[in-house]
Amino acid sequence: MGDVSILDIARRRGFFWPSFEIYGGVAGFYTYGPLGALLKLRIEKLIRDYFVNKEGCLLLDAPMLTPEEPWVASGHVESFTDMNIECMKCGEAYRADLLLEEKTGKSAEGMSLKEMLDAVKKAGIRCPKCGGELGKPYDYNLMFWTFIGPGKSRIAGCLRPETAQTTYMPFKRLFELGRKKLPLGVIQVGKSYRNEISPRQGLIRLREFSQAEAQFFFDPHDKERHPKFDTVKRKKLAVLTKSDQKRNRKEKVMDVAGLVKKKHANEWIAYFLAVSIDMFRQMGIDGKKLRCRQHQDDERSFYSSDTWDIEYMSDVFGKIELVGVADRTDYDLKRHQQFSGQKMSVTVEGRSFIPHVVEVAYGIDRPVYCVVESSLRKDGDRVYFAFPPSVSPYQVAVFPLVRKDGLPGQARDVYDALNAAGFYALYDEGFIGKLYYRQDEAGTPFCVTIDYDTKKDKSVTVRDRDNQRQIRVKIKDLVDVISHVMNGQIKFEKAGIPLKPYGARV
Amino acid sequence: MGDVSILDIARRRGFFWPSFEIYGGVAGFYTYGPLGALLKLRIEKLIRDYFVNKEGCLLLDAPMLTPEEPWVASGHVESFTDMNIECMKCGEAYRADLLLEEKTGKSAEGMSLKEMLDAVKKAGIRCPKCGGELGKPYDYNLMFWTFIGPGKSRIAGCLRPETAQTTYMPFKRLFELGRKKLPLGVIQVGKSYRNEISPRQGLIRLREFSQAEAQFFFDPHDKERHPKFDTVKRKKLAVLTKSDQKRNRKEKVMDVAGLVKKKHANEWIAYFLAVSIDMFRQMGIDGKKLRCRQHQDDERSFYSSDTWDIEYMSDVFGKIELVGVADRTDYDLKRHQQFSGQKMSVTVEGRSFIPHVVEVAYGIDRPVYCVVESSLRKDGDRVYFAFPPSVSPYQVAVFPLVRKDGLPGQARDVYDALNAAGFYALYDEGFIGKLYYRQDEAGTPFCVTIDYDTKKDKSVTVRDRDNQRQIRVKIKDLVDVISHVMNGQIKFEKAGIPLKPYGARV
Repeated sequence: MGDVSILDIARRRGFFWPSFEIYGGVAGFYTYGPLGALLKLRIEKLIRDYFVNKEGCLLLDAPMLTPEEPWVASGHVESFTDMNIECMKCGEAYRADLLLEEKTGKSAEGMSLKEMLDAVKKAGIRCPKCGGELGKPYDYNLMFWTFIGPGKSRIAGCLRPETAQTTYMPFKRLFELGRKKLPLGVIQVGKSYRNEISPRQGLIRLREFSQAEAQFFFDPHDKERHPKFDTVKRKKLAVLTKSDQKRNRKEKVMDVAGLVKKKHANEWIAYFLAVSIDMFRQMGIDGKKLRCRQHQDDERSFYSSDTWDIEYMSDVFGKIELVGVADRTDYDLKRHQQFSGQKMSVTVEGRSFIPHVVEVAYGIDRPVYCVVESSLRKDGDRVYFAFPPSVSPYQVAVFPLVRKDGLPGQARDVYDALNAAGFYALYDEGFIGKLYYRQDEAGTPFCVTIDYDTKKDKSVTVRDRDNQRQIRVKIKDLVDVISHVMNGQIKFEKAGIPLKPYGARV
Repeated sequence: MGDVSILDIARRRGFFWPSFEIYGGVAGFYTYGPLGALLKLRIEKLIRDYFVNKEGCLLLDAPMLTPEEPWVASGHVESFTDMNIECMKCGEAYRADLLLEEKTGKSAEGMSLKEMLDAVKKAGIRCPKCGGELGKPYDYNLMFWTFIGPGKSRIAGCLRPETAQTTYMPFKRLFELGRKKLPLGVIQVGKSYRNEISPRQGLIRLREFSQAEAQFFFDPHDKERHPKFDTVKRKKLAVLTKSDQKRNRKEKVMDVAGLVKKKHANEWIAYFLAVSIDMFRQMGIDGKKLRCRQHQDDERSFYSSDTWDIEYMSDVFGKIELVGVADRTDYDLKRHQQFSGQKMSVTVEGRSFIPHVVEVAYGIDRPVYCVVESSLRKDGDRVYFAFPPSVSPYQVAVFPLVRKDGLPGQARDVYDALNAAGFYALYDEGFIGKLYYRQDEAGTPFCVTIDYDTKKDKSVTVRDRDNQRQIRVKIKDLVDVISHVMNGQIKFEKAGIPLKPYGARV
């Protein structure tokens, strides 16, 4: 799986490509094509459904364009910055920390502007593009700014850099709607924006990106206990604690109970690390490439008392953060109370307090990329995506063997029935080899072919993407057969009469 | 259904409310709460699935933040304006046309700045807020502007005012992915932005709003024929043509075939008017309040040769446009070819041409509002939402009769099974009357109660929202029973053993 090839394949097959191509493109923006948009939809749904159905979260959908005030309160206006350094000759802009790391191999974590200036000078770094002299580094705010409303009545507005604050603002209303009970979980799925200085990693670092952020509000007295902790405590995780990082140690495998017992993380954080790892595996991300890494004290956001990431080791991009699980304490609600003058405290069992928050913040674009990278299979000349049926753009494709003799009509009927049963189905026509090839490209787990025998035996041929085996199945059993194979209740080969591949069948 | 009451109910029950309340709010922004966010999700899905599954559209997901060029090409930078007029004393801004219409009852459609100035003067209109003198009207661009990237390398960016152009830009790539066949349908569902001067109608006129816009690219030689026209031609529509508007006539009912035969609309436009009316009814919007209205020549967008809206007559807001169906000709693709220098023509059957486009552009927020308004029912003291199961936030709620004796565990199992079967299910606990009341508020069609008999007879009580009847159903039949009742295959009362309401049962 060469470096470039996977991005080439993704573009050629219509998963995703750099946006605004006809106008020369703008770094940090990607467009999802027909297959990618469906894949992204499935992945969003998997995360959202998990939190709504299994964790009882309330769903929220707040605007992405907001006034300035909440971001003054949250600290983003002051602190949501990267150090920018520009070439004084050609004007090219660079993230100073990345430039320094690239040129010297030295981490720039926690450096002041003065330290950065000295380090860049000492290392003799010049503009990588034109060789010109670099200016002084300065703090550059990563938010997109605009004005809302016309003329004199306009106010400053910005695009949210995270969904989180737009969930915190209506907390009191959500608390009422959740019947004044804690813990209260709320999830938002939507876009956020960061005006990155010089994004160069495709889907991994976007200026416009999708997130699914769950916020759990709870009584700080209950912080050490998560109601469903027992369901995950035996799960094994690859863990890299902050103390192990200090000692230059590698991650080690431990169970979730041990992580808490050794006081590396509280139950809330440990619980969501475990369920997130499960979710990523379920999407088809290679579990062997995932680890849980605790933020070190100097890299943690100012508002957080403890933060963990789940990281994926990509063949193409190296380390990718897929989700952050952070104990944000009562920082955000307190600040909104202070800046808005509205009370954020609640009274539960006679005690009044401002709830603490554990945030589980997923990127969506990054998991989409990791699913694509993890699912690519090469089998001789055959290149296909082994997407799990729960996230594949289509779950089942339906074809007539030929475009005549009434077969297309029969195939349409089967397609309609699969669609009505809730499958993500696709209808297509053409030369059968070409049709299979296209569905391999799309990662469709099952192909159903209607042939001349179908009318007689009321059956169709079903082909399995991964092993290319074929079975004959009665049309009336088709929905159940595909469901049961997808759920793993029955093996594909046992789900119908086995056939030799097309052409070989008598 | 009083004016204010429906908005009050929607806010109190957590459907939607004005955003940024704790900071005093900003006009034109709404937040969807737990029930509204689910309802919106269902409605988006219904529209998206229709176009992807039934019309074979490709799904696309492009950024909302874009560079400036495409909007110069599209004409938005020049022409996407409203006339703004501001009070010279207090600074309040008004849409000049609306202010004039409000004060004089006279339409301002097509007025020049000079004509507007004269009309405002002649009518003696002053600031409605402070009585101050109004300034000169001026053309105000409705786009939100920002900068992308840092320092000297930054470029002008803006939030898209429609999804359409972000679909046209990658047309050639989409044409390849669609295997170079026409007609080609592409749908995008996402946010768009308009910096309205003074939005005052809640969900109906938002500065940030959701759209589902389908673009059909086709050979202009085939414009008069739609491949599936025959499936809709007998459907009846309430139609108001531009000529009838000129003559001050009211809408009249005609069938789709007649609409085309009398040359009021081409087959493409007529087809999508018919399927859209069907879709709105399926969502639960009152079909008697819907009509198809053709744009008059002076109100049609500059790029369009013919445009129709489907309008809903709201009790609260008056006329609401839910979808626009427009023949955009080859205008947009031609302009992108001209401004980007990239060819937009295709070769099909030996002929090269730039495809024409029919656009079907749905708002999402407006249908959500109309579904809520159309579904509100008052039955004595009882107030509930009669949402169709296809769009209701939850389709089925599951309760234990009491919080003890193992009933919650049994109820959880039933909930899990319904969830796994693909229903939008909800689990809740409490006093049974209160639980039913809450589900009436949420518009949940079916409630399932687990009681002390459940263990013995392996059955549960199912309650129908609309008629409040109750039936007893075996747990093993529950999924099928609810599916069949939802599909209309069986009447609720016949789907199990009828019971008297709770308490009356022996």
